[in-house]
Amino acid sequence: MELYTYFRSSAAYRVRIALNLKGLKADYRYVHLVKDGGQQHTPEYKAINPQGLVPALVDHGQVLTQSLAIIEYLEETHPQPPLLPRDALGRARVRALAQVIACDIHPVNNQRVIQYLEKEFGADEAARKRWIQKWVKDGFSAVEKLLAGHSATGKCCHGGQPTLADICLVPQVFNARRFEIDLAPFPAIRRIHDYCLTLKAFTDAAPEKQADAS
Amino acid sequence: MELYTYFRSSAAYRVRIALNLKGLKADYRYVHLVKDGGQQHTPEYKAINPQGLVPALVDHGQVLTQSLAIIEYLEETHPQPPLLPRDALGRARVRALAQVIACDIHPVNNQRVIQYLEKEFGADEAARKRWIQKWVKDGFSAVEKLLAGHSATGKCCHGGQPTLADICLVPQVFNARRFEIDLAPFPAIRRIHDYCLTLKAFTDAAPEKQADAS
Repeated sequence: MELYTYFRSSAAYRVRIALNLKGLKADYRYVHLVKDGGQQHTPEYKAINPQGLVPALVDHGQVLTQSLAIIEYLEETHPQPPLLPRDALGRARVRALAQVIACDIHPVNNQRVIQYLEKEFGADEAARKRWIQKWVKDGFSAVEKLLAGHSATGKCCHGGQPTLADICLVPQVFNARRFEIDLAPFPAIRRIHDYCLTLKAFTDAAPEKQADAS
Repeated sequence: MELYTYFRSSAAYRVRIALNLKGLKADYRYVHLVKDGGQQHTPEYKAINPQGLVPALVDHGQVLTQSLAIIEYLEETHPQPPLLPRDALGRARVRALAQVIACDIHPVNNQRVIQYLEKEFGADEAARKRWIQKWVKDGFSAVEKLLAGHSATGKCCHGGQPTLADICLVPQVFNARRFEIDLAPFPAIRRIHDYCLTLKAFTDAAPEKQADAS
């Protein structure tokens, strides 16, 4: 397998964690999202992923895109250890937690959106930071309630083993810290994040550990 | 089952289509996203879904949120007819198509984001429309390439039967038309959309057919 990745992309970070949890090796291909005006925009990379986003995973000569779709694929092709609970309601809960982050926080704060805000509305650094903080806080407030108020929450978002929800949560906390968001109102998120970072699968996937970190 | 829905919410529209395709009945509970300053913000609704978004589905007394998680749940609990292909690579392709729309187009154009653009940057109607058009065009360009260039594309996004990808595509085309986006550059999207709208499961779920349409 080959993974097209960028150290600071939280969507790529999710797939790196999932690969590590599954004990799978992929050759990393580095796509620098800033250098050369963004290597994701080159015709070479767009021939791999027409959307011009990372990550992309190549397996059996097929290109897979979209981090959650990639992780569901890894789950189906390499079921152990499971990244989703066995019961349908539990799976729905984990997927919903993941999607609050992967649909409603992350894409709104993605680089391409922030760049367009700057270009179209002249959003300065302070305004861009307020924008990012707004969507993280809104999303984390919902995630915190879904975690703190639910009996299935354990050391991880759902029980004691990492699932797709934790895989999305940890990179989003990394982003939140990068943009100086106060995490005091989110004790369940902080506790689960801190626990996950005691696990090698998570720490090995961290941005600062990647060969392309700069 | 009970579905909290709003006629014009494309995420709720997805779940309505999925229920219809599965032949499942749910009692609809209408949450008006504009009236009363947005009924999704009431403490009553936020007790159901802390995120204050539609849809939410209640089954066996449990609240499920996030449209894609809800549809995967319906797929697992009511497997016929399938909304995902049987092979893992096909499932990954369908989920990726769905997520280009459900992660990278729809949330960026969501009502809450557009309202914040207006409040924070004074975006007038023309600027808001440009914003919406930008993300639909970017996303549809990628979807079009993924559809037009792939041998698995059939009458529907993946083969001849509707999948999760079509369930996301049709409501997004509805949105695109609402904001007067030229669909001429997207012939595969138009063809698949038009085919889906020959199916009762899709037409019955359409915004204008809903009891809360206004």
